[in-house]
Amino acid sequence: MRRAIALAARGLGTTSPNPVVGCVILDAAGRPVGEGWHERAGGPHAEVNALADAGAAARGGTAVVTLEPCDHTGRTGPCTRALIAAGIARVVYAVADPHPPASGGADTLRAAGVDVAGGLLAEEAAAGNAAWLTAVRLRRPHVRWKYAATLDGRVAAADGTSRWITSGPARADVHRLRAQSDAVLVGAGTARADDPHLAVRGVPGDRRPLRVVADTGATAVAPGARVLDDAAPTLIAVAHDAPEERAAALARHAEVVRLPRAADGRGLDIPALLTALYDRGVRSVLLEGGPTLAGAFTAAGAVDEITAYLAPALLGAGPHALAGAGITTIAQALRLRVTEVIRVGPDIRITAVPANAPEEL
Amino acid sequence: MRRAIALAARGLGTTSPNPVVGCVILDAAGRPVGEGWHERAGGPHAEVNALADAGAAARGGTAVVTLEPCDHTGRTGPCTRALIAAGIARVVYAVADPHPPASGGADTLRAAGVDVAGGLLAEEAAAGNAAWLTAVRLRRPHVRWKYAATLDGRVAAADGTSRWITSGPARADVHRLRAQSDAVLVGAGTARADDPHLAVRGVPGDRRPLRVVADTGATAVAPGARVLDDAAPTLIAVAHDAPEERAAALARHAEVVRLPRAADGRGLDIPALLTALYDRGVRSVLLEGGPTLAGAFTAAGAVDEITAYLAPALLGAGPHALAGAGITTIAQALRLRVTEVIRVGPDIRITAVPANAPEEL
Repeated sequence: MRRAIALAARGLGTTSPNPVVGCVILDAAGRPVGEGWHERAGGPHAEVNALADAGAAARGGTAVVTLEPCDHTGRTGPCTRALIAAGIARVVYAVADPHPPASGGADTLRAAGVDVAGGLLAEEAAAGNAAWLTAVRLRRPHVRWKYAATLDGRVAAADGTSRWITSGPARADVHRLRAQSDAVLVGAGTARADDPHLAVRGVPGDRRPLRVVADTGATAVAPGARVLDDAAPTLIAVAHDAPEERAAALARHAEVVRLPRAADGRGLDIPALLTALYDRGVRSVLLEGGPTLAGAFTAAGAVDEITAYLAPALLGAGPHALAGAGITTIAQALRLRVTEVIRVGPDIRITAVPANAPEEL
Repeated sequence: MRRAIALAARGLGTTSPNPVVGCVILDAAGRPVGEGWHERAGGPHAEVNALADAGAAARGGTAVVTLEPCDHTGRTGPCTRALIAAGIARVVYAVADPHPPASGGADTLRAAGVDVAGGLLAEEAAAGNAAWLTAVRLRRPHVRWKYAATLDGRVAAADGTSRWITSGPARADVHRLRAQSDAVLVGAGTARADDPHLAVRGVPGDRRPLRVVADTGATAVAPGARVLDDAAPTLIAVAHDAPEERAAALARHAEVVRLPRAADGRGLDIPALLTALYDRGVRSVLLEGGPTLAGAFTAAGAVDEITAYLAPALLGAGPHALAGAGITTIAQALRLRVTEVIRVGPDIRITAVPANAPEEL
């Protein structure tokens, strides 16, 4: 199963809106004879790839797969049928498929006389599929908030300069995160201050995640902004009452979507923004916004994972990673669970999830 | 030498104003026959303890010692003489003694026909003696700044509440840091907001580091403040122009020292404060102050080591670990070098030193 999970991870960034899935086929004697993973949406599923790799050796064998095999005909046929046709005697999967149209695979296999067991390394496999599982469960994209700060939590100096707080290796790592996401999102403040490009650089493959700017007043993305070039598709989300002429100017270079304002009127309604992204097939968002947008997402309970790059540096002044999250006293602090701490060059990368997040999605 | 460095560390917190030193004696055949470390100021040095442990087996043998053996008579006789008298044929030491009255040991040993080599694992041994080496080099105490913050760098919530940001294990770890320090220092803001006790709890041994409050206006430490109890000695540093009646009230329960104000008039002159502590035998200070005092120390270039406890939590508002350090643009950021990252319970402890600090003191 560990091998299947590793195979699944190869699909990160290219399978959306589908999950990543890996599959290993063992022959009747328990020897590995085939491997496969779901490579891209619309392409064959992991089981089909693995069965093709195994050929006749699959007969009487076992399929080890990270997700319960699907039972429906989408762009490809149901994997249950392919497994049965190949003569697979046993299926071991990690995570049950929570997606109503595709679930029921285990039952179908059992009805065909296949020995089925679920739950093996389920937590590990679920972590690899966090974005897709969150999206299916909540019907909104999984949101990973990424920020780069000094050890004392500043994301820029007092004069607004922030290039560069973190090291080259940490910035390269961010491009890997982008490449694994369906969309990269910033707010008006970041768009105005940094004129970010938000494209993927230096990562193998041709990943072009949707670039999204939450530009409530349609004032932050200026003509000629880097995000308006053709390096990747771009979506500008503006308020329903943003000036028409500004929205029209943006619409010449990007898709523009009008959304309701948040209750406080100062930004966009976060659930509406996430729904708009979900409707466009986005299942994972890398939130690279500044403190205000991060605060709005945090207040909306819409941060599923946090990746903090902490640079070994002190500033003592300047804006912070997070502002306006609506927390006023220590008892209200958003408690997290650290899932990983690693060194990236001279920097430290800390990954955490909300402490109330399920251990196993 | 690694064993000698480990032995030396046993003296942390009890040898000040002396260094920590460890020593291993090998017999003429290279077998370890004696161990010792400097246990407390005024007590025998590591070499003398190790020679006593080895007895006659030391003759013709080797002394492996973390610091160049001393050559002077302080409260105890020179170690050089003890080593020569014991018939030691070879001395291997890690760090040369930079303290003028005690240095020259290597030359004395050589003159007596002893084979002497220095520099083995010098960096590792120097790290273990960082406080003492800093104090000797700069004639002021080594300052370790400790703070506890959320992942987004807040040391309290918007309403000032901060109990508790970090976990029990992290707070217990702070008591270990206190026990290794000669003094524990906070500023007026912390004294006023938290009424801290600053004593050592839950650590074996009877360590009572000096409690120090930088209370410029003599207004923060109130009668009945916990820091005025008899759990440990207390020093209140006030400005030269602090009201006499307030200073007199404090002097009934603690030592009070008057110091010049900083150039900006708002706090105490940090070098003067450090000199006052040095003159009282303090060689290591644990700075537990709030953002203002930490900022003053940072601006004065008087932070030698940083220990940050980061709790997996977000606040999005509230005071920060560091303020007023005088840094306005990213190019002026105080760059650090991370020396350790460990998990302490659910929290993360990051240790760092200024990047311009010598690799080997």
